[in-house]
Amino acid sequence: MGASAGLAARRRGLARRVVGFSRKHKTLEEARRMGAIDSFETNLEKAAEGADFVLVSVPVASIAERVIEVSRADLEPGAIITDVGSVKGPILKIVEKDPIARKLFVGSHPIAGTEKSGPGAAFSKLYEGRRCVVTPTSKTDPHRAARVKKFWKDLGMEVEALSPAEHDRLLAVTSHAPHVIAYALALAAGSDKKRAKKLARYVGGGFKDTTRIAASSPQMWREIIEANAKAVDEAVLSFLQELLRMNRAITHGRWGELEKLFEQAARFRRSLDPAKKGRGR
Amino acid sequence: MGASAGLAARRRGLARRVVGFSRKHKTLEEARRMGAIDSFETNLEKAAEGADFVLVSVPVASIAERVIEVSRADLEPGAIITDVGSVKGPILKIVEKDPIARKLFVGSHPIAGTEKSGPGAAFSKLYEGRRCVVTPTSKTDPHRAARVKKFWKDLGMEVEALSPAEHDRLLAVTSHAPHVIAYALALAAGSDKKRAKKLARYVGGGFKDTTRIAASSPQMWREIIEANAKAVDEAVLSFLQELLRMNRAITHGRWGELEKLFEQAARFRRSLDPAKKGRGR
Repeated sequence: MGASAGLAARRRGLARRVVGFSRKHKTLEEARRMGAIDSFETNLEKAAEGADFVLVSVPVASIAERVIEVSRADLEPGAIITDVGSVKGPILKIVEKDPIARKLFVGSHPIAGTEKSGPGAAFSKLYEGRRCVVTPTSKTDPHRAARVKKFWKDLGMEVEALSPAEHDRLLAVTSHAPHVIAYALALAAGSDKKRAKKLARYVGGGFKDTTRIAASSPQMWREIIEANAKAVDEAVLSFLQELLRMNRAITHGRWGELEKLFEQAARFRRSLDPAKKGRGR
Repeated sequence: MGASAGLAARRRGLARRVVGFSRKHKTLEEARRMGAIDSFETNLEKAAEGADFVLVSVPVASIAERVIEVSRADLEPGAIITDVGSVKGPILKIVEKDPIARKLFVGSHPIAGTEKSGPGAAFSKLYEGRRCVVTPTSKTDPHRAARVKKFWKDLGMEVEALSPAEHDRLLAVTSHAPHVIAYALALAAGSDKKRAKKLARYVGGGFKDTTRIAASSPQMWREIIEANAKAVDEAVLSFLQELLRMNRAITHGRWGELEKLFEQAARFRRSLDPAKKGRGR
């Protein structure tokens, strides 16, 4: 996420200079080699020195801590700190307890990304045409919120504002619970190693797409789900309700009902892809 | 499926002449226009006259009936009938009760296809590099089974034989149950129309991929699941077991356990894509 933003910001001329920071030297070397950053520092204080815009792109569980750390650096006056975290409530809760960080921080969640991590997976068009949610609260500086919105718009995103809590509830349904479900589906096929080898032979495009996100970083997703546990649990339960309804129709042989449920589901799914809608005979 | 096979067979010179049959005139016109067939007949008897190889590409619930119907046509001596059905047991059961059809028929399931239906979705490379299962039984003519295997190989597929029952158990896990799950996930997000409109705004690539197959034909998939209900129910239950295990870890805050389950799932999923394996930091 960070390297893609660096690439895009540099190509679009949005920053005079992009400085990278990471705990891993290899990551920084790779990011520089690919043109995602102009230079890097392995010391956070130094990396943030004189910065007017800091994008914190780290796993969800570390964001608040990093934001507070960066807020103590020798930033430009009026500097802004934002992030790319997939969960917003818990981060805002911690950051807003900090008297310095809360003045500089605006929460962001660009809804983009792939199942891959690290600069090797970065590309400058990652954000183009995608949606970004920013989550200003009553404690957020409106000028900084406006500048953060502009930043994502300048990267080609459609930007809108939600409260952190609403963001977390919605994303639990559209992203966090689907990850749990995809992991569970991959695990159901893959848990018995001997059988898994056999099953792998009969996997088609359907299974692969349905479980693509189960190839995502287990640690990253455990952290996201941990940070949004209640909303994820609710979303999983509402999915379970629909699945059990379908399964009851299957075990009781109520085929007309099953087909109606499939139709309702297909209608919603097709509405997400208006350009390449299925023919659905 | 049928139009793609016609396209591929014609391009590879596997057939002197490909004759199309469908109840829909529009489908036949479209198939001819795109080069999937040389000519067509709207009468099944006529379409099959003199044929040495008949590919029955119709919804699962109609396959057995069509196979038996075709077996009565004035076919070439030694003619072969095969199909592309996603379920094999129930089809073989009916066909093998018929004294004429069972001599000509070999069950096939090319594991290929998309969420789209009809000739408009056809392309000649659909089958290339994919796997095809043929399901000869003790009643199947071995010469015809060998010729059917060769046909799919000539379309670029990796071909192997399974018993109809084993095919149906394996595909319930790798394809049929995932369809039910994808439909349920799409329905959970889309059942409340007002909320669905809002949710659609925050859908990313993950949700779209996970539910891509929920855009598939509801009727076609209801028929497949109806034909393989017991094995699908078992596969759904084994998925439910893994999902409930993950959800218990979430509600009890057992994050280490959750991450381990995600890791196991990710290991299996990544093993399906060795070429473009995630970096998985």
